[in-house]
Amino acid sequence: MIKPLGDRVVIKVLEGEMKTKSGIVLPDTAKEKPQEGEIIEVGTGKVLDNGQRVALDVKVGDKIIFSKYAGTEVKYEGQEYLIVSERDILAVVQ
Amino acid sequence: MIKPLGDRVVIKVLEGEMKTKSGIVLPDTAKEKPQEGEIIEVGTGKVLDNGQRVALDVKVGDKIIFSKYAGTEVKYEGQEYLIVSERDILAVVQ
Amino acid sequence: MIKPLGDRVVIKVLEGEMKTKSGIVLPDTAKEKPQEGEIIEVGTGKVLDNGQRVALDVKVGDKIIFSKYAGTEVKYEGQEYLIVSERDILAVVQ
Amino acid sequence: MIKPLGDRVVIKVLEGEMKTKSGIVLPDTAKEKPQEGEIIEVGTGKVLDNGQRVALDVKVGDKIIFSKYAGTEVKYEGQEYLIVSERDILAVVQ
Amino acid sequence: MIKPLGDRVVIKVLEGEMKTKSGIVLPDTAKEKPQEGEIIEVGTGKVLDNGQRVALDVKVGDKIIFSKYAGTEVKYEGQEYLIVSERDILAVVQ
Amino acid sequence: MIKPLGDRVVIKVLEGEMKTKSGIVLPDTAKEKPQEGEIIEVGTGKVLDNGQRVALDVKVGDKIIFSKYAGTEVKYEGQEYLIVSERDILAVVQ
Amino acid sequence: MIKPLGDRVVIKVLEGEMKTKSGIVLPDTAKEKPQEGEIIEVGTGKVLDNGQRVALDVKVGDKIIFSKYAGTEVKYEGQEYLIVSERDILAVVQ
Repeated sequence: MIKPLGDRVVIKVLEGEMKTKSGIVLPDTAKEKPQEGEIIEVGTGKVLDNGQRVALDVKVGDKIIFSKYAGTEVKYEGQEYLIVSERDILAVVQ
Repeated sequence: MIKPLGDRVVIKVLEGEMKTKSGIVLPDTAKEKPQEGEIIEVGTGKVLDNGQRVALDVKVGDKIIFSKYAGTEVKYEGQEYLIVSERDILAVVQ
Repeated sequence: MIKPLGDRVVIKVLEGEMKTKSGIVLPDTAKEKPQEGEIIEVGTGKVLDNGQRVALDVKVGDKIIFSKYAGTEVKYEGQEYLIVSERDILAVVQ
Repeated sequence: MIKPLGDRVVIKVLEGEMKTKSGIVLPDTAKEKPQEGEIIEVGTGKVLDNGQRVALDVKVGDKIIFSKYAGTEVKYEGQEYLIVSERDILAVVQ
Repeated sequence: MIKPLGDRVVIKVLEGEMKTKSGIVLPDTAKEKPQEGEIIEVGTGKVLDNGQRVALDVKVGDKIIFSKYAGTEVKYEGQEYLIVSERDILAVVQ
Repeated sequence: MIKPLGDRVVIKVLEGEMKTKSGIVLPDTAKEKPQEGEIIEVGTGKVLDNGQRVALDVKVGDKIIFSKYAGTEVKYEGQEYLIVSERDILAVVQ
Repeated sequence: MIKPLGDRVVIKVLEGEMKTKSGIVLPDTAKEKPQEGEIIEVGTGKVLDNGQRVALDVKVGDKIIFSKYAGTEVKYEGQEYLIVSERDILAVVQ
């Protein structure tokens, strides 16, 4: 298992199939392009300046949209994942 | 449904028709150009350094003016939206 | 009505007539050039890190001097306005 | 009257005569060159992150030394002034 | 012994053998590439702005993934180590 | 008298004679070169974000080492001084 | 004596002999190269935003590893030293 630190999450990127289901496709523009993924693991949250730890707003299983160039790719037991910070998650698809 | 995170909102961009109604058009200058949109969804707000969550100043249905180059485009069930941070919203048209 | 968010204000720029009245004209130098305007609307203020909202130091009707390259131009019902942050307002002309 | 906002002051720049009186002249070096001025108006002070407003350390009538490239020039009723932030004031000449 | 300061850790980099065991290999992309390592020593934690010291989320013996270009290499008693800040640790492999 | 503001000090630069006495000379390297000086005046200290004013760690008469390119030169009653921020003071020579 | 200010320390750089004893040598890579030194003097610590002063984590006599390009060189009574900030100290060699 890959347990992300702080406000990071581990994502399984959804390249094609989910976009068909949810109907989210990216228009052809010069704007920052988002990507979709499913959250596999979440960190324990960020520690604020007052010492308080803030839990993440997302949970395992959430389908999310994140900034395309965010995150770090890892491969674990034959499956590729992406580790991204919660601040690079734009929205949850419900 | 696309539920934005933190201080972000989901906007339906108003290209032409609303500008005619509200009378807002952009002068031809080199200054930063705003755009108009209607808020479709709002996030749960930003968490301050003291752990307090601050609700957004805008709500679903608000017509807003936002910085032109702000935000990330997404397409959901055939409709294009923009996800922008509240700090890129300049004003509400009332 | 255009209601600015946070610490922003909506300004009607005063190009020529007020400068004659108040006697404020800009010397011909390479320094940052200010501009004058009248405040039409004010935001509800900025939220501090402790969650407290701070009302603006300016009010509707104030004649102000602001940094020339600050703000975003909008046109509303045939009138041009500028939306600027309070931190770009240098002074109030009384 | 020009009332500066926040931690700003309005200064009447002292080009030549005061330098002779106080004996302050600038050596011919590549270092940042200061200038002298007299404070005409002071702002109500900066608001800290805890909401507290801090009064300025300078007052009307103070002769000050400030960073040469700081501030914004304005002309009011035939007299040129400079609006500078208190953080660009280096010292008071007593 | 090398005792790191603050939020730093001392890592023994795992170049090849662990990747085989855990099955983590890096795909061939232009994204930021992570590396794996085992934590040998941890610092006493970072001091927050309120004076509170926050212990690290990782402990000696943890297998971690960290940003490839992070850290400083040292050689101690014939063994090479890397000193990295906890904020450059992406995840713990469990 | 030149009274510096905030965390600034007024320094009389010690070019040659003190270096001989204290034995501090600069090696011929590409690193940042320090300079020595004697403190003539100190400011009332910096105001923290909680509104508390912190007195300086140096006092009038201290011989100090400061970063070479720090500060602003002024000449007052025939004597050259330097106004530097306390954060550019590296050490006190005792 | 050279008494460093704030979170700075005075270091005697250990060029060759200590590396042999402790066995720390630098591999030939493009990564940031550390250096070793012995702490001769420590500052009284950094003042936090709440006014609290935080003592340093290192003490006189500590053998430390620090970032190679950190610090300012001084020569005092025939001996060369380096003044570095504690945040540029990576670890203590025990």
